[in-house]
Amino acid sequence: MLQGAPIRVIGIDPGLRRTGWGVVETTGNSLRFLASGTVTSDAENGLAIRLRELHDGLSAVIRAYQPDEAAVEQTFVNKDATATLKLGQARGIAMLVPALAGLPVAEYAPNAVKKAVIGVGHGEKRQIHMMVKVLMPKATFDTDDAADALAIAICHTHHRQSAAARAAFAAL
Amino acid sequence: MLQGAPIRVIGIDPGLRRTGWGVVETTGNSLRFLASGTVTSDAENGLAIRLRELHDGLSAVIRAYQPDEAAVEQTFVNKDATATLKLGQARGIAMLVPALAGLPVAEYAPNAVKKAVIGVGHGEKRQIHMMVKVLMPKATFDTDDAADALAIAICHTHHRQSAAARAAFAAL
Repeated sequence: MLQGAPIRVIGIDPGLRRTGWGVVETTGNSLRFLASGTVTSDAENGLAIRLRELHDGLSAVIRAYQPDEAAVEQTFVNKDATATLKLGQARGIAMLVPALAGLPVAEYAPNAVKKAVIGVGHGEKRQIHMMVKVLMPKATFDTDDAADALAIAICHTHHRQSAAARAAFAAL
Repeated sequence: MLQGAPIRVIGIDPGLRRTGWGVVETTGNSLRFLASGTVTSDAENGLAIRLRELHDGLSAVIRAYQPDEAAVEQTFVNKDATATLKLGQARGIAMLVPALAGLPVAEYAPNAVKKAVIGVGHGEKRQIHMMVKVLMPKATFDTDDAADALAIAICHTHHRQSAAARAAFAAL
């Protein structure tokens, strides 16, 4: 792949009630904000309908912004099994929709996302959001989930740049 | 709805490696086996690809057998959070695919399925499979998951008959 070719990445922060998404474009080392938002499901509907709402919303975003690659946060597995199951169901949709569109889908642990954006593997949400604005001053986000999704997209651009650098070095 | 109109129900027993499915047709009190099988995902592929494999397999089954309603087992939430998350992701796809096809999707707890098929809320897999064969002598299944899926479909036909009976009584 040419190093100068722009690549669009969609980051997704999955959740049954709110799934955040953010699209960035990277060309070499530069990073550009394209769009972000939040897909919601109506808690008054049954689970299958809610999952379809997430599917339809994310599908529309991918149709609109035509990303080349996707990155999804590796869900934090907490101690509440019911919450983990709910999150798993939403996460299944967040992984499926880009795969149905033919995109490669990368997964990143929350610590990897924090490390890519704020330089260390821990930190508060406020720090992440601040660094998203520092890295992309034009970025806007309507929810914490959308900001997190942008951080995931940024994380993916860093990792693919490192991978490209390693590949270029190996080819020397 | 006319009591005599045949209704096709697909039961789904979700799992990331193997998702069982079974289609039955009910007319009044009679129950007829139509088909069953197992959709698998290749463990060597990434998660997003595996979820797409489940999606594509279940979509093909629904296109082929045109069920009117779907029933999915309410996943047993065990203590292993990683396994719960995996199951949740597969279950998200199992709920989404019939919803995308416009089918209403019911959920049943494992105990409800056992009660509908063997008369009590507990029992071994062997008992369930035996009763599936007693209730539908022509039923065949390639895996335990397919047999469980048929049991889920049978459970749904019982519940919708009870609901219809209650509605008829209320209308008197």
